[in-house]
Amino acid sequence: MKLLDIYAKMRADLNKIEKGLERSVTSDHLLLSETSLHLLKAGGKRIRPVIVLLAGKFGDYRLDVLEKVAVPLELIHMASLVHDDVIDDASTRRGQLTVKSKWDNRIAMYTGDYIHAKALTIVTELSNPAIHQVLSKALVEMCIGEMEQIRDFFNTGQTVRNYLLRIRRKTALLIAISCQLGAMAAGTSDQIYNRLYRFGYNIGMAFQIRDDLLDICGTEKQIGKPPGSDIRQGNITLPVLLALREADKREELLTEIARLKSTNGEAVSSRAIELIRQSEGIGEAERLASRYIDKAVHALSGLPDIPARKSLKDIAYFVGERSY
Amino acid sequence: MKLLDIYAKMRADLNKIEKGLERSVTSDHLLLSETSLHLLKAGGKRIRPVIVLLAGKFGDYRLDVLEKVAVPLELIHMASLVHDDVIDDASTRRGQLTVKSKWDNRIAMYTGDYIHAKALTIVTELSNPAIHQVLSKALVEMCIGEMEQIRDFFNTGQTVRNYLLRIRRKTALLIAISCQLGAMAAGTSDQIYNRLYRFGYNIGMAFQIRDDLLDICGTEKQIGKPPGSDIRQGNITLPVLLALREADKREELLTEIARLKSTNGEAVSSRAIELIRQSEGIGEAERLASRYIDKAVHALSGLPDIPARKSLKDIAYFVGERSY
Repeated sequence: MKLLDIYAKMRADLNKIEKGLERSVTSDHLLLSETSLHLLKAGGKRIRPVIVLLAGKFGDYRLDVLEKVAVPLELIHMASLVHDDVIDDASTRRGQLTVKSKWDNRIAMYTGDYIHAKALTIVTELSNPAIHQVLSKALVEMCIGEMEQIRDFFNTGQTVRNYLLRIRRKTALLIAISCQLGAMAAGTSDQIYNRLYRFGYNIGMAFQIRDDLLDICGTEKQIGKPPGSDIRQGNITLPVLLALREADKREELLTEIARLKSTNGEAVSSRAIELIRQSEGIGEAERLASRYIDKAVHALSGLPDIPARKSLKDIAYFVGERSY
Repeated sequence: MKLLDIYAKMRADLNKIEKGLERSVTSDHLLLSETSLHLLKAGGKRIRPVIVLLAGKFGDYRLDVLEKVAVPLELIHMASLVHDDVIDDASTRRGQLTVKSKWDNRIAMYTGDYIHAKALTIVTELSNPAIHQVLSKALVEMCIGEMEQIRDFFNTGQTVRNYLLRIRRKTALLIAISCQLGAMAAGTSDQIYNRLYRFGYNIGMAFQIRDDLLDICGTEKQIGKPPGSDIRQGNITLPVLLALREADKREELLTEIARLKSTNGEAVSSRAIELIRQSEGIGEAERLASRYIDKAVHALSGLPDIPARKSLKDIAYFVGERSY
């Protein structure tokens, strides 16, 4: 089944989540509602809510309860994007102006803080403190991941392990707990929610590797911003690290990265991108993403054979597909 | 009793809180530990932890439980300061370099996010979801307060009511819930924690008005940063709004504020400060602060007559004292 079919089947419930998202950020404060709705309307695949709902199918599926997990997780994702944009100096995301460029950095920072706090008010309506604990621990890890990204800007000496740890915190964890918390909120056994966590973790890793590949191999239209943005701002991703291992490319690539660094990301990154595209790094990174997808699918195998399991499997294959 | 005596009496418990604060921000991430500890070591009166512990005395006083309220509330205060410094472009606070000037804005933003998330992991160890709910709602209000401050920068047409609503969100609310949550964690009745909330709210209002007065009437040594910082960056506080009501000062003060605005806070604010100091605004603001103190003391009157009540009263009078 295609991703669109999964969305179609869940449309009524996803519409409720969408309404919940809008309602959650419509405050008595005009500017905050504006900036938050701007972010919300910019779209996104709402992959976290979809996953929360599907995970909920393994237990007692109650939309009013699952909504209090799905909406906060999507809000936390949005809040992290808006803080990311401050850091990344990004002027567009998904082809739309970012909050920081339409308003300013200060407003973007507090919009993030606000959306984040709103997420907490919703999730705390659930009376299971274990859910609050899982979420807050993940938030700490996410911040550490963001700091690691800053620390590792232009660090060409970092290891692949460094990279994997960073994307685990930055991306995979939130997707993993989307699975886990959806299941927990539906009251499944810990065996079930632990398996779902593993599923989420693995598709999260594959998703970020695919996203990093897209920034190198995609077109501006596919990415929603100019290609090579990552390397221009110093974000050294997996394909770069792998390309740096190739003797005939290493020196020139290092020189290109040093040049990008010295010009504060103003220089053109096309030569660096060309070198990486020509390297084995692309194929290797693709294979690693596929291995994560396989692991995700494997994690599903121990779960009850309900339609939601099939949908999660389809999502895994969708994440694993080349999008460039 | 003097404030120092109150601290002396509580020293053993406050030392434990201090240790808890340090432990909480010592992570496996070096830079985050460094920036957070830098903030922590810059000091502060730890008024929120003191208040949490005193409020806890009205119920079942268990330090291991109260710590899980006191530490997070101080952390949330610290996180808001570090985000404030990003916005305010402040290079020093309490006479120390701010995180944003010692490191940079991006690091300051994520240090704030991290400390904030750490606070949540601690408070969620308490299994009472009502505590999580009160806290998360306050966090939303605090963000709205921060945004209102940005929106109202250089807005000389704002009302005193605007100002009071803003400082309620920005400052008073966190102090109010410090009282409330200390009492809730100690299992007091709602009559008791509601009274304590009112006490905290009123000293919080007085505290912010006093702080705003200090920025105008204090010396650099007393303030820990140059006087007139608020007005230079566009933060129009109560004494300014009151001074603007005086016919013989209004025009010149408006001109001065317009000049500060046009130079992006680079101009000298001494003439504006001089005008405000000469106005009736100072006395009026002082009287309003005193009225809040009276209300705070009044809120205490319905509480059991235990030593903690006397300490809270002393804290109220301390907050109400002129510090310039």
